[in-house]
Amino acid sequence: MLNFDFHNPTRIVFGKGSVERLDSLIPKEARVLVLFGGQSAEKTGTLAEVRKALGSRTWKEFGGIEPNPAFETLMRAVELVRAEGLDFLLAVGGGSVIDGTKFVASAAAFEGDPWAILESFGGAVTRALPLGTVVTLAATGSEMNCTAVVTRKSTQTKAFFANPLIYPRFSILDPTKTYSLPARQLANGVVDAFTHVVEQYLTFPVDGRVQDRFAEGLLQTLVEIGPRVVQEPADYDTRANLMWAATMGLNGLIAVGVPQDWATHIIGHELTALHGLDHAQTLAIVLPAMLEHRREAKREKLLQYAERVWGITEGVADQRIDRAIEATRSFFESLGVKTRLSDYGIGADAIGAMIDKLAEKGMVKLGEKGDVTPEVSRQVLARCL
Amino acid sequence: MLNFDFHNPTRIVFGKGSVERLDSLIPKEARVLVLFGGQSAEKTGTLAEVRKALGSRTWKEFGGIEPNPAFETLMRAVELVRAEGLDFLLAVGGGSVIDGTKFVASAAAFEGDPWAILESFGGAVTRALPLGTVVTLAATGSEMNCTAVVTRKSTQTKAFFANPLIYPRFSILDPTKTYSLPARQLANGVVDAFTHVVEQYLTFPVDGRVQDRFAEGLLQTLVEIGPRVVQEPADYDTRANLMWAATMGLNGLIAVGVPQDWATHIIGHELTALHGLDHAQTLAIVLPAMLEHRREAKREKLLQYAERVWGITEGVADQRIDRAIEATRSFFESLGVKTRLSDYGIGADAIGAMIDKLAEKGMVKLGEKGDVTPEVSRQVLARCL
Repeated sequence: MLNFDFHNPTRIVFGKGSVERLDSLIPKEARVLVLFGGQSAEKTGTLAEVRKALGSRTWKEFGGIEPNPAFETLMRAVELVRAEGLDFLLAVGGGSVIDGTKFVASAAAFEGDPWAILESFGGAVTRALPLGTVVTLAATGSEMNCTAVVTRKSTQTKAFFANPLIYPRFSILDPTKTYSLPARQLANGVVDAFTHVVEQYLTFPVDGRVQDRFAEGLLQTLVEIGPRVVQEPADYDTRANLMWAATMGLNGLIAVGVPQDWATHIIGHELTALHGLDHAQTLAIVLPAMLEHRREAKREKLLQYAERVWGITEGVADQRIDRAIEATRSFFESLGVKTRLSDYGIGADAIGAMIDKLAEKGMVKLGEKGDVTPEVSRQVLARCL
Repeated sequence: MLNFDFHNPTRIVFGKGSVERLDSLIPKEARVLVLFGGQSAEKTGTLAEVRKALGSRTWKEFGGIEPNPAFETLMRAVELVRAEGLDFLLAVGGGSVIDGTKFVASAAAFEGDPWAILESFGGAVTRALPLGTVVTLAATGSEMNCTAVVTRKSTQTKAFFANPLIYPRFSILDPTKTYSLPARQLANGVVDAFTHVVEQYLTFPVDGRVQDRFAEGLLQTLVEIGPRVVQEPADYDTRANLMWAATMGLNGLIAVGVPQDWATHIIGHELTALHGLDHAQTLAIVLPAMLEHRREAKREKLLQYAERVWGITEGVADQRIDRAIEATRSFFESLGVKTRLSDYGIGADAIGAMIDKLAEKGMVKLGEKGDVTPEVSRQVLARCL
């Protein structure tokens, strides 16, 4: 097992009816900015519950944070925070709203051009406003980690940053708030959470037994509940299990002391930036091809994954690996998320531009061993067609 | 799944060579009390490393905290803290030293008789000194939770308290610090960690899938590594896996949103208080008998435990349950921890006094459904003979 530091100070308040707990979680004297996305937070009544819980506090609202939150949009929220002297941010939404709020928290307290936050991968952040979240979609784990992804529309750049100062002070997870989500977002959530876990698990063995078992437990849970998440709109326990699995899948816990990959995510980001695909769609396309292409580097863990997650124990090793990768692809497809570039009308001619973008951003040594060069990424994308 | 709050602010610094990190973890101006147990912390060189890392800080030392730390002993440490104006506590040891340090942290800042801390189960604690730990024995999970057990020798009372103020600020877990432990303590550690997990898992199902999978993953890990922990004195990965499994087994995570039992622990405490058995010995005696006696209340989870932890899938349900309980007992025995009262020279005549003590402490509604009355506890102990 590798040495590690683990520290996750976010408080989780989980369950039906927990939005009313906001009143005890936000300081009475706080001047709050409530950030949200489209109309659903209003339509579902979640915003009304939030307003009620805020009571006599001063608050402002900022809606319209889009999926893959845009730097340009978020900078308008930063201006509002500064103009109104607000000092506590409350994200009401899914991963995009939470990621965007983390950026606003950092940028509002930042001196100079806040794009430097992203260029430094978060290293330049020395202060941030406190933030909390009310989660309405389970997928990204952003509610319990200190990372965020922001897109600069003008340059089609999707950029990542991390800093311990942006851990949410609290996150409220009420599974009933996810009842009204459309099937596409739910399916995306399952694929996103699943791939987060795989990126931290399917590398090479370092005898991190607890981490492996936890990762496998999350994957098994997602496989078990995936179809019901999409098909049964108001099954409390299914949604509760998805919510908790997604949160635990990217809060740092299963990553401690083990190697991590993330090449699938980084290549996927370029697909979103250049072609507008949903984040989860990009993962569903790239992950099976990545596992296929890197099957030798990941051989031991692929065999463990086949056995423990999919119960595949028959056949010679290469057949078991084939079947595990095929099971992964079929799982995504069964949720309604297509796994080929051609399913989205993207052809071989698009690959060059994505590879150029990766190279331009310095993403030339990806993967758990740093050997996923742009050429390897190109080969992986060629397998995605 | 049940509603829950989860918040665990302890920082974990894990791995070989991590004691030197102390210097960055304790404030430079802190006035430190280093608390430890017997001679082993000195003999193994851990205390020397700690002293070196403390550098130019002012510090005092308090040794001699015994297994099942005594109120009477700890109150002498409280006097020292007050007399010297110390403001940071550093526990160097296993669960007893850490539990004792948590009590000192609470009692030193307490107005009135500190026994009230235990009588209120920690509710009376409103302030506590900050504390950190250097763990030399993996077992209790105390390094990453906010609970402690203290024994009042004069009345043979083993008492429990909990308060969020006593979460360690940090815990340093260096597996190499456990190399020199005697086999008995190592075996005890495995049994203790195993039973912690069982108390939070083997109750009744509430569809807490992640929690179940995590608990099963910890139990599988302990079963896999148990024999090697005891037999191979310096196998880094084995000790690292034990350390992390033990910490994760009682840091609150697997308990969220699910019912908990703890009857085995509470009955076991009386065995320690009245007969001086090691804590883990009491668990190894009581747990198999408890599972046997309460097999109907725990039926569904016992079947799940049989299948997922022990791979028992053949035979009718009652046979599978029998085999799972037998496997549990055999596992403890294989580590060298005896599982019958008679193995420790305790006979049926001792049961009455233990039940009286439980009743006196108000422990009359134990178990996940509160139906483990003193009469049920008596029957369980009768099965332990």
